Amino acid sequence: MDKRKKTTTKARALHRLKIIKGHLESIEKMVEQNKYCIDIVHQSRAVQKALQKLDLLIINDHLNHCVVRQIKNGQEQKSTSELLKLFEYR
Amino acid sequence: MDKRKKTTTKARALHRLKIIKGHLESIEKMVEQNKYCIDIVHQSRAVQKALQKLDLLIINDHLNHCVVRQIKNGQEQKSTSELLKLFEYR
Amino acid sequence: MDKRKKTTTKARALHRLKIIKGHLESIEKMVEQNKYCIDIVHQSRAVQKALQKLDLLIINDHLNHCVVRQIKNGQEQKSTSELLKLFEYR
Amino acid sequence: MDKRKKTTTKARALHRLKIIKGHLESIEKMVEQNKYCIDIVHQSRAVQKALQKLDLLIINDHLNHCVVRQIKNGQEQKSTSELLKLFEYR
Repeated sequence: MDKRKKTTTKARALHRLKIIKGHLESIEKMVEQNKYCIDIVHQSRAVQKALQKLDLLIINDHLNHCVVRQIKNGQEQKSTSELLKLFEYR
Repeated sequence: MDKRKKTTTKARALHRLKIIKGHLESIEKMVEQNKYCIDIVHQSRAVQKALQKLDLLIINDHLNHCVVRQIKNGQEQKSTSELLKLFEYR
Repeated sequence: MDKRKKTTTKARALHRLKIIKGHLESIEKMVEQNKYCIDIVHQSRAVQKALQKLDLLIINDHLNHCVVRQIKNGQEQKSTSELLKLFEYR
Repeated sequence: MDKRKKTTTKARALHRLKIIKGHLESIEKMVEQNKYCIDIVHQSRAVQKALQKLDLLIINDHLNHCVVRQIKNGQEQKSTSELLKLFEYR
């Protein structure tokens, strides 16, 4: 990740990942305790949403730093093909 | 859309939209003829996938032309915030 | 679709499909008039959301009528495997 | 989860959750080591896909056991409204 914004985004990303890991562990407990399937699936989807928000945090950082720098430095081919892959695969 | 690639991408986009419209009309007929719900939903999802492919065609064109030009011309704020919105809303 | 609820759900589905077709035609015009890529993609995604809402209307009808009847009549294998496919493919 | 299939599905779900947790920890390390944003996002999406597969495993179990039993026991209202929510929220 870009060095200018690294500290903030990195710290926020790590904080979110820690919360997500705790959430995942609570899903493990739900499965172990034979909790109701529907409730487990809703918790799993909440984790997926949290990961999507993490992605946006990282993508925002990427757009504002890496992409701008890459395109200004003539690496537009690399930059745009990487972004297209992010749009394709989701 | 960008003028350099306009003809090709525009022609391809219009061709796809025509096919999608035909597909949508066949779903209308399925509903009118009381076809099986499950089959209707699968057809509706096929249209959604076709629209997603259309989006990728247009986004590819946008990345390679508009975004590169905007960032080289100092409009990076506009360019990156528009891309972030595309990632956010899907 | 089920006969008991057919009229209402069918009428609502056809009404929505008509609106969606109009929306699609306005996207065609946007492409023809070389409108800004980002705006076209947002409109395409609005159509996709409208189709997802149509799906939910039809799935709701299917669950409350077809699925309940199928399972009570011993067709649970057919019923559950069709639902699983809807969850898998999206 | 249903008692008939509990052992197998439960064991498989716990096994997958363990793998997903390991995957998440490797993403944490990538962030700590300032790895390239694009690579981090691709790994995060792989975790999301793995969670979606876990959901399908649990939903399959739910459909074949809970839903069939609920509908045969006259709890169709509860059963179908829970399924609709799963389709709505994703």
